[in-house]
Amino acid sequence: MKLTILGCYAATPRTFTNPTSQVLEINRHTFLIDCGEGTQVELRRNKIKFSRIQHIFISHLHGDHFYGLIGLISTFRLLNRETDLHVYGPKGIKEIITLQLKLANSWTNYLLIFHELEGKEPQVIFEDEKVSVETIPLKHRIYTNGFIFREKPGLRKLLINEAVEHKIDVTLYQSLKLGKDVISEEGKLIPNEYVTAPPDPPLSYAYCSDTVFDMDIVNQIKESSVLYHEATFLEENADLAFPTKHSTAKQAATIAREANVGKLILGHYSTRYADISLFAKEANLIFSRVELADDGKTFNF
Amino acid sequence: MKLTILGCYAATPRTFTNPTSQVLEINRHTFLIDCGEGTQVELRRNKIKFSRIQHIFISHLHGDHFYGLIGLISTFRLLNRETDLHVYGPKGIKEIITLQLKLANSWTNYLLIFHELEGKEPQVIFEDEKVSVETIPLKHRIYTNGFIFREKPGLRKLLINEAVEHKIDVTLYQSLKLGKDVISEEGKLIPNEYVTAPPDPPLSYAYCSDTVFDMDIVNQIKESSVLYHEATFLEENADLAFPTKHSTAKQAATIAREANVGKLILGHYSTRYADISLFAKEANLIFSRVELADDGKTFNF
Repeated sequence: MKLTILGCYAATPRTFTNPTSQVLEINRHTFLIDCGEGTQVELRRNKIKFSRIQHIFISHLHGDHFYGLIGLISTFRLLNRETDLHVYGPKGIKEIITLQLKLANSWTNYLLIFHELEGKEPQVIFEDEKVSVETIPLKHRIYTNGFIFREKPGLRKLLINEAVEHKIDVTLYQSLKLGKDVISEEGKLIPNEYVTAPPDPPLSYAYCSDTVFDMDIVNQIKESSVLYHEATFLEENADLAFPTKHSTAKQAATIAREANVGKLILGHYSTRYADISLFAKEANLIFSRVELADDGKTFNF
Repeated sequence: MKLTILGCYAATPRTFTNPTSQVLEINRHTFLIDCGEGTQVELRRNKIKFSRIQHIFISHLHGDHFYGLIGLISTFRLLNRETDLHVYGPKGIKEIITLQLKLANSWTNYLLIFHELEGKEPQVIFEDEKVSVETIPLKHRIYTNGFIFREKPGLRKLLINEAVEHKIDVTLYQSLKLGKDVISEEGKLIPNEYVTAPPDPPLSYAYCSDTVFDMDIVNQIKESSVLYHEATFLEENADLAFPTKHSTAKQAATIAREANVGKLILGHYSTRYADISLFAKEANLIFSRVELADDGKTFNF
C-alpha cells in the first residue's frame, strides 16, 4: 500500500503548497482521493500515470477538495482516454461537471460514471475481489464523507518445503493457497495448516477530511492500519475548530488513540502556520505513531 | 500600459507551462483576461495584488481559459474581499459559478456581478473616463469574444516655461490641460496651442484568443498599439488549424500586417512544440514587429 500526498493544505493554493489531493495505491488499484485545483499538475510532478486512475473519490464540495476535477476530466479527454472513469462524490457533483462539459461542447469520449452520495450511514461504494471502499459519514459544514479502503485477505502462503516433504502434487498448490486440505501422492489427508501459513493481515486506510472532532467515527475506523485525519488547527486556535467544523492535531490524535490505528497521518493544515512540525508535537502528547503529510511526500505500508 | 502573461499555452496545464491568463494594467485599471486553472497561484507568483482586480474578462468557456475562475472567486472570499467583482463572459458562466457556490454553501461576502455576453456584434462592455473595453466577436468552436482595451485620450501637456512667459495664473493651468484658451494676467487671449502640447496618443490592446484565421476582425482592431493573437500551430500543422478553429503563427502575422498594429504578441502555443522561437520565425516572414508571449513575461508599452 502506497500513499502519495499531492496536496495537504487547507483553503487556498499557494506557490508552495497545494490543496487536498492524494493517490492511494492498494492491491493494484490506483485511487485518487479528492482533487483540489492543480491536482493534474501534481499528478504529473509525482509521475502518476493518468491512465491508471479509474476511480476518483470526492469527500465534499468545498473548492479545496474538488476544483481540480473538471480540469482533470477535460485533460483525460484531450489525451484520448478510452477507459471508463468512476467519480464518487456528493450529490450535485454530476451537475457541476456536466454543465461545464455541455457549455464547452466538450463531452468526454470515454464513459464518465458518477456515483452520487447522499447517505448518512456508512455504505460500501466500491468492491471487487481485491479491495472494498466504504464511506465514513463525517460532520463538516456541508455534506461530507471520509472513505475507508480495505484490502481483502490474500491467499494463504504456500510453505514449499513442507509441501514437497508431504509429497503434494504441484497441481494442488492453488487449492492449498485457497485454504483447502489435500490428499498427498501417498494417499494421506494433509491438513492445510501443515503446509501453508496465514496470509499477511489485510491493510486498511481510513481517510477523514474534513471533519469536526467526532468520536462517532471511532468504531468504524477501529484498528485501521493507517488513519489520515485532518488537523486544520493547533491548540492555540482550538476555539476556531468547532465553529468551522474542523479538528486540531490533538483531537485527531485522540481519535487515533481511541481507534487504536496503526499509524496516524496528519494533514489539511491551515495556511496560517509556517511550521507544521508543531502539529506532530501536539499530536504526540496523545498518540505516538504520528506522521506528517506534506506535498509530494510518499508513505509505504 | 503593462501586460503580464500568467499563462499562454493551449489545452492542459503542465508542471512548466500554464493555460491562458494575463493581466493588463492600463490607465490605473488592473484587468484580468481569461483565467485558466492555476491562475490564482500565478497571480501570487507574479506579485499581482488580488485586491486590485475588479474586472475579469473571459473569452470563452473552454477549460484552459476559465477553470481557474471559481478558485479565484473562492479565494477572494476567504481573503475577506469587500470590493465588487465584475465578471464578463459568455452566457452560462453565471450558472457555472453560482451552482458551485451554492453547493458549497459558500456565497461570497462581496458583490459578484456577472455581465453575460451573447452578442454577435462588437459591443462596449465597460467604459469610464479612462478606458473602454469592447468585445471582438471571434470565430471558434464555441461562442467566443476577444476584447479591445482602449485608453481614452489624456489631458494636453502643459508647457510650463511658455505658461510662465505668457504670465498665465496657475489657477488656469487645469483649463489649459483641458484644451481651453485663457486670458493672461496682462489681459491677453492666449490660444491653448501656444502653451500646451497634445497628449500622448492613447494606447490600445486587442486580445484575440481563441480564433480561427478571420480577416473580418481586421477592421475593428486596425492600428491597435498591441495585438495579442493566438498562434496555436506552426505551418507544418496548418491543416489542423481550420478544423480546430485555431490559427497558425503566419495567419496571426497576416492579421497583424493587415490591421497595421504597432506590435504583435503571439501565444496559445500547442503543447506539442518544444521550441516556441519557431513561432516568431514564421510570423516574421509576414510581419516584423513580433514578440513571443511566455509565462511570467511582462511587456511595457
